[in-house]
Amino acid sequence: MLAETLAAIRPADQRALAEARAHQDRLTKPRGSLGAMEDVAVRLAGAAGACPPPVPSPAALAIFAADHGVHARGVTPWPQEVTVQMVANFLSGGAVANAFAAEAGVPVTVVDVGVAADLPDAPGLVKRKIAYGTADLSQGPAMTVDQAVRALEAGIVVARNLVAEGARCLIAGDMGIANTTASAALVSVFTGSDPAEVTGRGTGIDDRTHERKVATVRKALQVNGLHSDEPAAGAEGSGSGVPSPGATRPPSVGTSPSEALRALAAVGGFEHAAIAGFILYGAAARVPVILDGMIAGAGALVAAALDPAAIDHCVAGHRSAEPGHAVTLDHLGLRPLVDLELRLGEGTGALLAHPLVCAAVRVMHDVATFDAAGVTEKPV
Amino acid sequence: MLAETLAAIRPADQRALAEARAHQDRLTKPRGSLGAMEDVAVRLAGAAGACPPPVPSPAALAIFAADHGVHARGVTPWPQEVTVQMVANFLSGGAVANAFAAEAGVPVTVVDVGVAADLPDAPGLVKRKIAYGTADLSQGPAMTVDQAVRALEAGIVVARNLVAEGARCLIAGDMGIANTTASAALVSVFTGSDPAEVTGRGTGIDDRTHERKVATVRKALQVNGLHSDEPAAGAEGSGSGVPSPGATRPPSVGTSPSEALRALAAVGGFEHAAIAGFILYGAAARVPVILDGMIAGAGALVAAALDPAAIDHCVAGHRSAEPGHAVTLDHLGLRPLVDLELRLGEGTGALLAHPLVCAAVRVMHDVATFDAAGVTEKPV
Repeated sequence: MLAETLAAIRPADQRALAEARAHQDRLTKPRGSLGAMEDVAVRLAGAAGACPPPVPSPAALAIFAADHGVHARGVTPWPQEVTVQMVANFLSGGAVANAFAAEAGVPVTVVDVGVAADLPDAPGLVKRKIAYGTADLSQGPAMTVDQAVRALEAGIVVARNLVAEGARCLIAGDMGIANTTASAALVSVFTGSDPAEVTGRGTGIDDRTHERKVATVRKALQVNGLHSDEPAAGAEGSGSGVPSPGATRPPSVGTSPSEALRALAAVGGFEHAAIAGFILYGAAARVPVILDGMIAGAGALVAAALDPAAIDHCVAGHRSAEPGHAVTLDHLGLRPLVDLELRLGEGTGALLAHPLVCAAVRVMHDVATFDAAGVTEKPV
Repeated sequence: MLAETLAAIRPADQRALAEARAHQDRLTKPRGSLGAMEDVAVRLAGAAGACPPPVPSPAALAIFAADHGVHARGVTPWPQEVTVQMVANFLSGGAVANAFAAEAGVPVTVVDVGVAADLPDAPGLVKRKIAYGTADLSQGPAMTVDQAVRALEAGIVVARNLVAEGARCLIAGDMGIANTTASAALVSVFTGSDPAEVTGRGTGIDDRTHERKVATVRKALQVNGLHSDEPAAGAEGSGSGVPSPGATRPPSVGTSPSEALRALAAVGGFEHAAIAGFILYGAAARVPVILDGMIAGAGALVAAALDPAAIDHCVAGHRSAEPGHAVTLDHLGLRPLVDLELRLGEGTGALLAHPLVCAAVRVMHDVATFDAAGVTEKPV
């Protein structure tokens, strides 16, 4: 299923991109006056292979929930049970993702891909549990490659079902206590960044916990043979996050799909794998995906390592306050639409961006050209 | 009518602000994890004097259209007729503001407060013309004080009617070729900034036109006795827009309402006056106003000079690419929600922010507390 999905992905259509750029300049507004909104509309034209592209509505949100063996290392003060409790909160409509989704008219599906407890059946809950949480990534691989592929395929199936039910825009959210630790490890590996550059405060942790979190990510890379033993010279404690000239940066992986799968299995979470699959299916079906923050970004790095063209079908919904997320967006060449210091996950940042994406595309459909409206164009 | 409106304005309710802050911390999310979205919700609680505040929906957009005598100075390559043509475009639904408004479900009203032509009656057009465009602000006052007050009152009436029809959020847009020139003059006067710092490229102008525009703004301030004769030392050409230490900055006006009205009349436009009145009515009625870009920002500076408490009822929808707009937002102490290099006006930036503002408030209504949801709170 993964192979078929990958085989169906096409990069952005250059002709639709060019047509969309030219069309933007004929609309009754000063050229370029919609700033980044023009770029989003053009990007979606390339993704759809059509100008104008379809308005990406209705959207559907899938929140992928899973637990993480690395929780045992004390990387967060929140107890692991909060994952289960928040799943219940999503299902009863009480979380922020529900409020944002309700405001945007987006239905919410919760997918258990690896919560460390049995969940009762409930409307809106899809059960695709791979295991009761991953193994501790700082002691060895978090998953087997087979588990990683099954989690990827769970994401593909969820996306396929949502598209079959009518979704024309896909949003992936996440829930999993300790999942910013696994995300930092993935970002470090796939962007070649030092763990200290990309490991943030997650839900809000103190200095000691943050030090422990960075050390845990570093150990995970070493144990799993993904990085050099020593931190990049000058990277840690430089403050700016920019290694000094001549610093040795660890090489990023992802030059081959099998390497990418091994790295995902080594330090990722079930939700990262599922989100990667979800993105790949969106790309294959030419249904745009709005990316959320740090966890979705890490999933997008996995998807990009499997096929870079998948990212042509993604829009960066927002930039999270997590430092690794900015590094991720830079690596993927994406500019975020919303930048409001959110650091919640659940798909919240992407949900806020959805009306902006729709508005950007709507311009291509509704706005009159200078000719048609009889508006005099500025002499060039 | 202006006096009654001003008399009705109350500043933010401190008790509701404190209650809203405390409520945010009880909701099932890490503290502060919604970043600036939390601040918006708290701000609206203060404005409404209630926690939670009402969700600011439905919204209504009024686009205030007017012409400018300063157009004759060659500050823009667009012909003045484009104002009329764009009014027709708004009325037939073909402009970007219409597309964004349709996406957000917001009705559009166009208000002629000073277009330099007679407009045929049309559904959605409100006729409140004060004159056929302002006089040239670089030769003397653009309006009489009486005209400025009548334009302010036109904005009050439009807002009052929209609220009477059910609007629970007000958005002011603008249309008027050359109106960024008048806006720059207002921003310069009300923030005490040098014209070179706050005069931008508007719809996109070349270097020569930009130089002429800056000189025109400077002359307008001199002719109308609003600034010192010399530019602030170090302000022009410094690139950073930050005067060097010891530079003399012209004093800002606005210490008294009558001074503010004189300055508005001297260098403003009918749409700026109307937008100021529109904002004041929103504040008086405790109906929040989402500010758009440079022109609405200049109108907000006028409103703030008449009563600073009016700004407690405003949210900055976006930050425009115009340099004077960032100066304006800083002066008003507002943080923009959307920052995508838009420079179109018409209310477009504010329309994009409306779903974000609603989502921020919706959180206060819908999201469960830790106690109610049975979610374990992080040990402090």
